[in-house]
Amino acid sequence: MIWLMAAAEARRRRGRLFTEPDIDDDSTGDKEAYMASILARYRKTLSDRTKFHLGYPYNLDFDYGALTQLQHFSINNLGDPFIESNYGVHSRQFEVGVLDWFARLWDIEKDEYWGYITNCGTEGNLHGILVGREVFPEGILYASKESHYSVFKAARMYRMECEKVDTLLTGEIDCADFKVKLLANKDKPAIINVNIGTTVKGAVDDLDLVIKTLEDCGFSHDRFYIHCDGALFGLMMPFVKRAPKVTFKKPIGSVSVSGHKFVGCPMPCGVQLTRLEHVNVLSSNVEYLASRDATIMGSRNGHAPLFLWYTLNRKGYKGFQKEVQKCLRNAHYLKNRLIGAGISAMLNELSSTVVFERPKDEEFVRKWQLACERNMAHVVVMPSVTVDKLDHFLDELVEGRSMWYKDENVKPPCLASDIGSVNCCCPQHRMIS
Amino acid sequence: MIWLMAAAEARRRRGRLFTEPDIDDDSTGDKEAYMASILARYRKTLSDRTKFHLGYPYNLDFDYGALTQLQHFSINNLGDPFIESNYGVHSRQFEVGVLDWFARLWDIEKDEYWGYITNCGTEGNLHGILVGREVFPEGILYASKESHYSVFKAARMYRMECEKVDTLLTGEIDCADFKVKLLANKDKPAIINVNIGTTVKGAVDDLDLVIKTLEDCGFSHDRFYIHCDGALFGLMMPFVKRAPKVTFKKPIGSVSVSGHKFVGCPMPCGVQLTRLEHVNVLSSNVEYLASRDATIMGSRNGHAPLFLWYTLNRKGYKGFQKEVQKCLRNAHYLKNRLIGAGISAMLNELSSTVVFERPKDEEFVRKWQLACERNMAHVVVMPSVTVDKLDHFLDELVEGRSMWYKDENVKPPCLASDIGSVNCCCPQHRMIS
Repeated sequence: MIWLMAAAEARRRRGRLFTEPDIDDDSTGDKEAYMASILARYRKTLSDRTKFHLGYPYNLDFDYGALTQLQHFSINNLGDPFIESNYGVHSRQFEVGVLDWFARLWDIEKDEYWGYITNCGTEGNLHGILVGREVFPEGILYASKESHYSVFKAARMYRMECEKVDTLLTGEIDCADFKVKLLANKDKPAIINVNIGTTVKGAVDDLDLVIKTLEDCGFSHDRFYIHCDGALFGLMMPFVKRAPKVTFKKPIGSVSVSGHKFVGCPMPCGVQLTRLEHVNVLSSNVEYLASRDATIMGSRNGHAPLFLWYTLNRKGYKGFQKEVQKCLRNAHYLKNRLIGAGISAMLNELSSTVVFERPKDEEFVRKWQLACERNMAHVVVMPSVTVDKLDHFLDELVEGRSMWYKDENVKPPCLASDIGSVNCCCPQHRMIS
Repeated sequence: MIWLMAAAEARRRRGRLFTEPDIDDDSTGDKEAYMASILARYRKTLSDRTKFHLGYPYNLDFDYGALTQLQHFSINNLGDPFIESNYGVHSRQFEVGVLDWFARLWDIEKDEYWGYITNCGTEGNLHGILVGREVFPEGILYASKESHYSVFKAARMYRMECEKVDTLLTGEIDCADFKVKLLANKDKPAIINVNIGTTVKGAVDDLDLVIKTLEDCGFSHDRFYIHCDGALFGLMMPFVKRAPKVTFKKPIGSVSVSGHKFVGCPMPCGVQLTRLEHVNVLSSNVEYLASRDATIMGSRNGHAPLFLWYTLNRKGYKGFQKEVQKCLRNAHYLKNRLIGAGISAMLNELSSTVVFERPKDEEFVRKWQLACERNMAHVVVMPSVTVDKLDHFLDELVEGRSMWYKDENVKPPCLASDIGSVNCCCPQHRMIS
């Protein structure tokens, strides 16, 4: 239980952030000064940490100055976005506007979809999979082993049978293994989580092949439900030319995408869209609930829709297209420079997630806030990641490696089992490629 | 399916909030002006709606100007508050500070609790009940029928057996009925949702009596799990003198409270505290998850802890005590004036929720944003609800009633079955009281 030890350590290290019980409540002046100094120091930390950030798929480049005038309202979109609530301080009209924007992006008519703005990607997955389970109470959940952990959390929370499907080296779902598992469970409906960009490798599952595999195994369209987890790439793929389309014209049940990732938002949020008919199933089953309770959460952040509306409107389709192209270009630049420097690296087609050799120095990993798994680290090239920043990072990485591997007996790790020997530059595989 | 019709109507009424596809992407000036005008109009609406708000337990009186400097950072406390993540732009130190503050309030040692800041009261209930289910996989969920809908949603999501327990007229759980239901299910552990303030009547379940009932029915402490849903009153009760205490010194498993209610916060949030030992059970079962995934959501709003920290620190225990007293005083004022005007009304001891006759005019209900159920409406007296505001409301209500009931054949509704004949002023019961 390493994490418990880490937690205990964190508990010991907690700083003094409250004046109580030491400072008397009435010495307001002292308290205000104390709090102001804490905030000033914290602001500096946030600035520094924002500057050196590469590992998470968060676009940190946004300017919501125009929305500051709304920050002091308690905006709450409790319940269903399409039903007026008696609480008047809401932003439903913006929420529905944003949903309509995505409905257009994913080809579904306004009167055929239902959706809402969630608190994060996890809520989207929890909702999509719950809808799937309500449509098929006996359904088995299939998800590739590189799916986001929230998918397996959903299976456990909802007490669903779950089949983990193998992946290819790219990180995509292995449809050969999927087929074997489907055939072994032909008697039960299938609920499938399809990844539109996996967390670690940014791999995009082949939606068309998933559907074909289902059909080949004898699953008719009324015996499966597909949820597309488009956390990051759900919003990028529509703007990539050769990319296969995520669209409700295909037999999918729901799509979710994060708002704080490619769009950029001061707090996590997401968009969840599903077919209206499915939500009717969800709702009609709930006789003991307020009839309109079809969201996972109850009270819902009314500021998030405003942030999304603002950016979607300001950038527009063309603006997103330009940004996506820039990200893909910069991702290729990073990957090529890594390979050029003899560092193992992989970049999936359609993706801006560059996977590479995990840096040996944990301090370096923390500084650049890289997400790591086994021998891999990754950089997710977002609009806020410029070529200058990548150069700075690359220079430091190359310099670091010259120190870490100075001693000839210390070798860089092998990534062949993670990203394939063709992408691996470890001493053993360097010769091959 | 009335709500579906309402939803369809809302869909038809959606306004124009996006310039696309009509306005060309490149005419940036037009677009900016268009958006600015939408925002200005929206700001005006929010102001108006904030002014006339009485029905929801949200404290709308806050000033977070000092935090504006942090609004442009993408602050995300993904995962466990006590484990450092590689993502550096977080507010864990503030989150843990806030949790410690509540741990002190609810009498649990720093090294014995675990918790996190949630997105809303629902997330707290979903978490508390999930922990209960993981501790007792075969446990039956007991909750009074006036519990928040999220409790029954949890039962359904988690596929748990659920027993709905009757309530007294006050809205409290009826422990006689609870006993009958416990005795009928003695072979299975009990997971109990205890309401510290119900949604409609602000009723506080008698925690001590619930525990005694469990003990009387032969449930030892290792065969039940109590989750306290303290959405609103969880933060008020500690500051009410004669109130029975919610404390971890009693055999409870978890407590949740909302942050946007009594504290006041621009977006919904909540605090969830549980015993560390229980979260260990939760985590140790999750071999397929990142070991530290013990929250419901994944990415988590890092601004909410800052808002909470700021208010808790600024007001302190004494400040909250004063505000709670003011709210209770004003609630009594409102109730007495209602009764004085011959209007059915009830105010539970320990509560600031005044339940009264549902106004006949829906326009009036919408203006004052009253939450209604059957023949009841309620006003939740929060720190932002002043005597002036109550007077304004009462004057309008009395004036309204003189019109609604001008015709002698139109009578005010009877609330005897909702709040008891002793509190009912309908023509039939007026004589009695």
